[in-house]
Amino acid sequence: MQQVDVNTAGGSYPIRIGKGRLDALGDAVPADASRIALVTNPTVAEHYGERARRALADSGKEVTLLTVPDGEAHKTMATLQHILDTLLQQRFDRRCLLVALGGGVIGDITGFAAAIFLRGVRFLQVPTTLLAQVDSSVGGKTGVNHVSGKNLIGAFYQPIGVEIDTDLLRTLPSREVSAGLAEVIKYGCILDAEFFAWCEQHAADLRALDPAALQYAIARSCELKAQVVGRDERESGERAILNFGHTFGHAIEAGLGFGEWLHGEAVGCGMVMAAQLSSLTCGLPTNAVERIRALVAAIGCPVQAPPLNGPQQWVELMQGDKKVTAGQIRFVLLPELGRAQVSAVPNGPLQEVLEATRNLAASSAGVPPA
Amino acid sequence: MQQVDVNTAGGSYPIRIGKGRLDALGDAVPADASRIALVTNPTVAEHYGERARRALADSGKEVTLLTVPDGEAHKTMATLQHILDTLLQQRFDRRCLLVALGGGVIGDITGFAAAIFLRGVRFLQVPTTLLAQVDSSVGGKTGVNHVSGKNLIGAFYQPIGVEIDTDLLRTLPSREVSAGLAEVIKYGCILDAEFFAWCEQHAADLRALDPAALQYAIARSCELKAQVVGRDERESGERAILNFGHTFGHAIEAGLGFGEWLHGEAVGCGMVMAAQLSSLTCGLPTNAVERIRALVAAIGCPVQAPPLNGPQQWVELMQGDKKVTAGQIRFVLLPELGRAQVSAVPNGPLQEVLEATRNLAASSAGVPPA
Repeated sequence: MQQVDVNTAGGSYPIRIGKGRLDALGDAVPADASRIALVTNPTVAEHYGERARRALADSGKEVTLLTVPDGEAHKTMATLQHILDTLLQQRFDRRCLLVALGGGVIGDITGFAAAIFLRGVRFLQVPTTLLAQVDSSVGGKTGVNHVSGKNLIGAFYQPIGVEIDTDLLRTLPSREVSAGLAEVIKYGCILDAEFFAWCEQHAADLRALDPAALQYAIARSCELKAQVVGRDERESGERAILNFGHTFGHAIEAGLGFGEWLHGEAVGCGMVMAAQLSSLTCGLPTNAVERIRALVAAIGCPVQAPPLNGPQQWVELMQGDKKVTAGQIRFVLLPELGRAQVSAVPNGPLQEVLEATRNLAASSAGVPPA
Repeated sequence: MQQVDVNTAGGSYPIRIGKGRLDALGDAVPADASRIALVTNPTVAEHYGERARRALADSGKEVTLLTVPDGEAHKTMATLQHILDTLLQQRFDRRCLLVALGGGVIGDITGFAAAIFLRGVRFLQVPTTLLAQVDSSVGGKTGVNHVSGKNLIGAFYQPIGVEIDTDLLRTLPSREVSAGLAEVIKYGCILDAEFFAWCEQHAADLRALDPAALQYAIARSCELKAQVVGRDERESGERAILNFGHTFGHAIEAGLGFGEWLHGEAVGCGMVMAAQLSSLTCGLPTNAVERIRALVAAIGCPVQAPPLNGPQQWVELMQGDKKVTAGQIRFVLLPELGRAQVSAVPNGPLQEVLEATRNLAASSAGVPPA
C-alpha cells in the first residue's frame, strides 16, 4: 500500500493505493460519523456493492445504499436532486458520511451532493475506474452537467480521503483501461519526462494490469496532480496545465456526441494534437511529438482525430469550453517534454493542426480501437 | 461611511455602511470583471433596480438585470436553476460578477448561484432589508429551501464585498424594521452587554430610522457577527451562538406556517423564551430576562409565543432543526447578559417554558403587532 497526501487551502486528505483497499473501507470512516450513505450505480453495485457495504459496516455505523442511474447522461441536476431528496427524507444529519463508489460520474455528483447538503458534509472517494483513480478523485472538482455543457454547475470541495483498490480494475473493460492510461501519461508530458519514459517502458505491463506497475503509475499520477492542486486549488493559474489535451479532446467529445469516444480516448488524441501545435508554436522537438503519438497508440488510444465538420466547427466547439477568457481560446502547450505552459496561439498553426484532421477523413480516423 | 472588514478562511471582504452607497456601486466592481448580472425581485426592482443598474454601469461593464419571483416560497432549487440557466444561455463566463440586490432571499439564492456557477464566480451583496444588512449578508451562508425545511441545500461562500445603504430602509415596512432590530439586539444579548444597553437607550431612534443610530447599530452588529464568523466560518463551534432565539423561533415559524410571522419576529420572541430557559438552567438573573423582554417589545416585536399544539409539537418542530445532533436539541443560553453558551437542557425547565405558552392561548399571544 502506498499513501499520497494532498494539501489544499480547502483541506488535507490522504490517498491510499493498493490491493484490497475495498475490504478495509471501515478504517476510513470517522469515529464521529452518524450514518453512511453509499452512493453507486447498478453496474458497480453488482460487482462491489455488497463488499463495500459490509466493509463500511465494520465501522459499526448504519450504511444506506443509494443507487443512481449509470452514465454521463445522468450526471444532472435531476440526479443530484434525487440524492438530496433521499438524504433529507431519511433524515441524514450534518455528521453523516457520503461514500462515492464508482467512476468519475459517481465521484463528481456525490462530491457535489456532499458540498451542498446541509451546506457541506464529509465524503469519501472510492474510485472504481482507472480514470477516476488518477484524475477525478484528486483535486476536489465536483459537479454536474448542463444542457449547455459539461461540469458547468459544481463546486471545489475536498473529500476526507480517497481509497484506491487496484484489484477493482480487473472488471473494467480494456477500452476504459486505455482511456485511463491516457491521463497517466498526461502527467509525464506536462510535469515529469522521467515518468513519461517509465510509461514508455511499462506500457504493456500497464495494459495487462500488472499490480506493481499499476500501483506505481497511479501513485505517481496522484502525487503529480496533488502537487499542482496543492499550489492552485481553484484553477486560477498553474492548475490549468492539467487540461493538456483537453481543449481538443473536448471538441472531439462534443462534436461526435458525448459518449461516442471515452473522455480519456478524446484526451489521448487531443494530446497528440496539442503536441503538434506545441511543435509549431513553442519549439517542442518533432521527436517528442512522435514519442507522444507512439505512447498514446501503445496504451491503446486513438491518435487520429475525426475531421468533424471542418476547422470552423472545431473552433466553435473549443470556444464553448469553460477555459475560454474573453472569447480567446488558450491552449496548454509543451515547450519540452515534461514542462507545460498556457497561452493563446496564432491562427496559422492552429489551422494547420485542424486542417490535418481532414486528410484522415477517408481512413480509420475517429474510430476508437475495438 | 463606516467600514467593517470580515476575515475568514474562505476569504476577506469589506462591508461598507452609509447613506448613498447604492449610487457608488460602480466602485465595488473589480476591474477584471467581464460582465455583471444584477439579481433582484420585482418589488425591489421597482424602487431601486434602475438606480443600481446605472451605478453598476458606471464601471463600464455590461449589466444584465435578472428578476426572480419575490418571497421565501421561491427560494427553491427551481429558482436557482432558472438563474443558472439564464447565465449559461447568455454565456456568462468565470470572470463575471453577480450582484444580489434585495433581502435575505435574494442574497442567499444569488450567493448560492455564485458558489456553484462554473464552480464559483464572484458576487457582491447589496442588502435592502435591515435583517439582511445585519445578518444574512455577513458570514457566507448561502442556500435554498427544500420541502423538508429551510436552507437545507447550500454552501458556505463569501462575497467580495457588502454594500449597505441605510437610505434604502425608508421604503421598508415598519414591521420589517422591527424584525431586523430583533437580530440587532441579539448581538447585544450574546456578545456585548454595553451594546445591549445602547440599544435600550436608542430603541425609539432606531424604529424611527434615525440615520446616525442606524449606521452605528448596523456597523456594530456586522462587527460582532464578523468576529464570530472569522473565528468559526463553518459553524463547527462558536458560531452556533448566533442562533440565540432561533431554535424556539424556528418552531414558531414552522408551527404557524412560514411567512405568518416574519423571521425576525419569531427570533425576537424566541429570545425571550431562551432567556427564560437560561434563567431556569444557567443562572441568568431575572432582571436580565425582564430587560430582554422589554427591549424586544420596545423595538416592536411580539414577546408572547403561540401555544401551537402544546409542548409536544414544540419539541417535534425543534427537533427538525439542522442543529440537532444525534436527536438531542441543543440551545443557545445566556449565563449572563452579553455572554452565550450552547448546551442541552434538562426536560423539566424546557417543559416549564413550553407550558407557559399555553397560558396565553386566550390572550393576544401569537399575533404580531400591526
